[in-house]
Amino acid sequence: MKINGQAYRTIWLAQDGWRVAVIDQTKLPFRFETVTLGSAEQAAEAIRSMVVRGAPLIGATAAYGVALAMRVDASDGALEAALALLGATRPTAVNLHWALARMRDRLAPLAPEERMAAAYEEAAALCDEDVALCRAIGEHGLGIIREIAAGKQPGERINLLTHCNAGWLATVDWGTALAPIYLAHDAGIPIHVWVDETRPRNQGAALTAYELGSHGVPHTVISDNAGGHLMQRGEVDMVIVGTDRTTATGDVANKIGTYLKALAAHDNGVPFYVALPSPTIDWSLSDGLREIPIEERSAREVTHLAGLSEDGEVGTFRIVAPGSGAANPAFDVTPARLVTGLITERGVAPASSEGLARLFPDLARGAAA
Amino acid sequence: MKINGQAYRTIWLAQDGWRVAVIDQTKLPFRFETVTLGSAEQAAEAIRSMVVRGAPLIGATAAYGVALAMRVDASDGALEAALALLGATRPTAVNLHWALARMRDRLAPLAPEERMAAAYEEAAALCDEDVALCRAIGEHGLGIIREIAAGKQPGERINLLTHCNAGWLATVDWGTALAPIYLAHDAGIPIHVWVDETRPRNQGAALTAYELGSHGVPHTVISDNAGGHLMQRGEVDMVIVGTDRTTATGDVANKIGTYLKALAAHDNGVPFYVALPSPTIDWSLSDGLREIPIEERSAREVTHLAGLSEDGEVGTFRIVAPGSGAANPAFDVTPARLVTGLITERGVAPASSEGLARLFPDLARGAAA
Repeated sequence: MKINGQAYRTIWLAQDGWRVAVIDQTKLPFRFETVTLGSAEQAAEAIRSMVVRGAPLIGATAAYGVALAMRVDASDGALEAALALLGATRPTAVNLHWALARMRDRLAPLAPEERMAAAYEEAAALCDEDVALCRAIGEHGLGIIREIAAGKQPGERINLLTHCNAGWLATVDWGTALAPIYLAHDAGIPIHVWVDETRPRNQGAALTAYELGSHGVPHTVISDNAGGHLMQRGEVDMVIVGTDRTTATGDVANKIGTYLKALAAHDNGVPFYVALPSPTIDWSLSDGLREIPIEERSAREVTHLAGLSEDGEVGTFRIVAPGSGAANPAFDVTPARLVTGLITERGVAPASSEGLARLFPDLARGAAA
Repeated sequence: MKINGQAYRTIWLAQDGWRVAVIDQTKLPFRFETVTLGSAEQAAEAIRSMVVRGAPLIGATAAYGVALAMRVDASDGALEAALALLGATRPTAVNLHWALARMRDRLAPLAPEERMAAAYEEAAALCDEDVALCRAIGEHGLGIIREIAAGKQPGERINLLTHCNAGWLATVDWGTALAPIYLAHDAGIPIHVWVDETRPRNQGAALTAYELGSHGVPHTVISDNAGGHLMQRGEVDMVIVGTDRTTATGDVANKIGTYLKALAAHDNGVPFYVALPSPTIDWSLSDGLREIPIEERSAREVTHLAGLSEDGEVGTFRIVAPGSGAANPAFDVTPARLVTGLITERGVAPASSEGLARLFPDLARGAAA
């Protein structure tokens, strides 16, 4: 997608041909800066500190992190150490582990001297595949938006609501939940997006609003508290969100607060869709609430917030009463019963074991074994 | 309630016996400062600039504003001028107009030389009555908390969740939703409060956290997104919130986001209580969703936030992507079907026409006529 007219992906090889460049997402939306990663440690730190975030981009960064490690030492021990280092950064992210497993499968059988080149090749392939996946998700989601548009008067606005950032900044390009939105907008369908600010890290207010604004998609930021009210008033035609981890039964773990929007959508008869590339499906899980561990992040993300001061400086401010502590569960689980459908690269599936197995018989069969 | 061990109300007579002291709530939670009001003009400005806020406290401040005016000039013209001045500060605040009407009813029939003493007396009575009302709500709510405690192991923590600030800072003392919490804490019941930060104005993170911390009640601030997850995990025993307006059928209009917590409580079998003094019941309304107009406040409350910078300055900063706009509905309506009970000064009623009419036959009958 474009920033100031220039096409970008979120991760690319630096001009030196071996280091890896990423957009520093902690600086957005107030500053556009890129960071160059020169080691597995730097890649791990970029994931941990959320310079890169979003499940697919985390996976891609981890894959390149392995390549960076192989450049220094391509022994079996170094490979395992890099996989362990990168795998420990974000426990909830299934893409991360999927990407690392893929790197291991590719590299472990090779002789050490072949590993570096293969690692770069595999990381690049993984990125290209992610772009293709997101584009396919966009096409399938566009079909749903077209159906909603068909039920409206010509030119009547279609209101979508999204939570957090499942846009191109969370992937390599296009995004997951936002891919259908970009395609619908580009197709001339008059869409408008309600953007949940998504406390505590405000990825909606910061990143989704930034993305949509850069692409020219009409949107309005709302507090996370407002979506239920808008649905009660008939001002939301469809909710579309991403997911960090999906069970084989269709439960989805996504950014904290997603569950509340799913409840409100269900209570008001608003369709609630989750967009996901199939690698976020964890075929070994059948009960999201019991089986998906929820990352507890720093209380400081709740007590403090970054913003732009009146004199144009980006700073961090305390917003909670001094002396009061905070808790910060980063994700919640939305049970399949509240999900209208899962938009995948192969099409739209009902959020159920049967629905997913029908679309992914090859993957689901492996899990049943 | 207590601040650093010292008992306070939110409004009191200054040591000189005639001026009126209030806590400057625009400085909370980062600075505790009091302001002394020496004229009706200063009282009006304190209301207008939100030095005082919360419907009962606004009414009490206006009542004392009339007393301050009578001290200078107790003529009929001066009385009407003071009522007009104070009435124009927050045009939509029902308690404000109720308090001013009460002052006029008491003072207008008197000879001018009797008005000053009567005004101080009436303002003090109004404050004392508000304290008694809140205290009664507290006692009835305490009964519910005791029941929950009885179902726990001795010493086991009871987790309450609240949204926004319905505490003593919004009233003269005790608060509405927080009154049962203070009484339970003072009674030695081991309670802990999850405090929704309550975007966009963050009254939870700023005021409720400050109140609870100052009084020594264990509490943890959470993003508004987190409550559903905590309920799914069994970490909330009871939700208790206030309300700005209640229909005769038990629908409640409260701070935006309340409806989402009610949905989550319902989905997880967590009791959801609303605490209210009977004057917030609008006996003329039967359908909250259709009949209660929702105030749309400034987008700037969403795009900007006040906080404490690292060098100790209180400032305002932008948190939404530059160029993106925002919407800001201030309240939402929680339908009665999601409300476990209404905690009033007369006891706990089911959220229904029958439940409220049984507790308030005198008021409900008038409405039916």
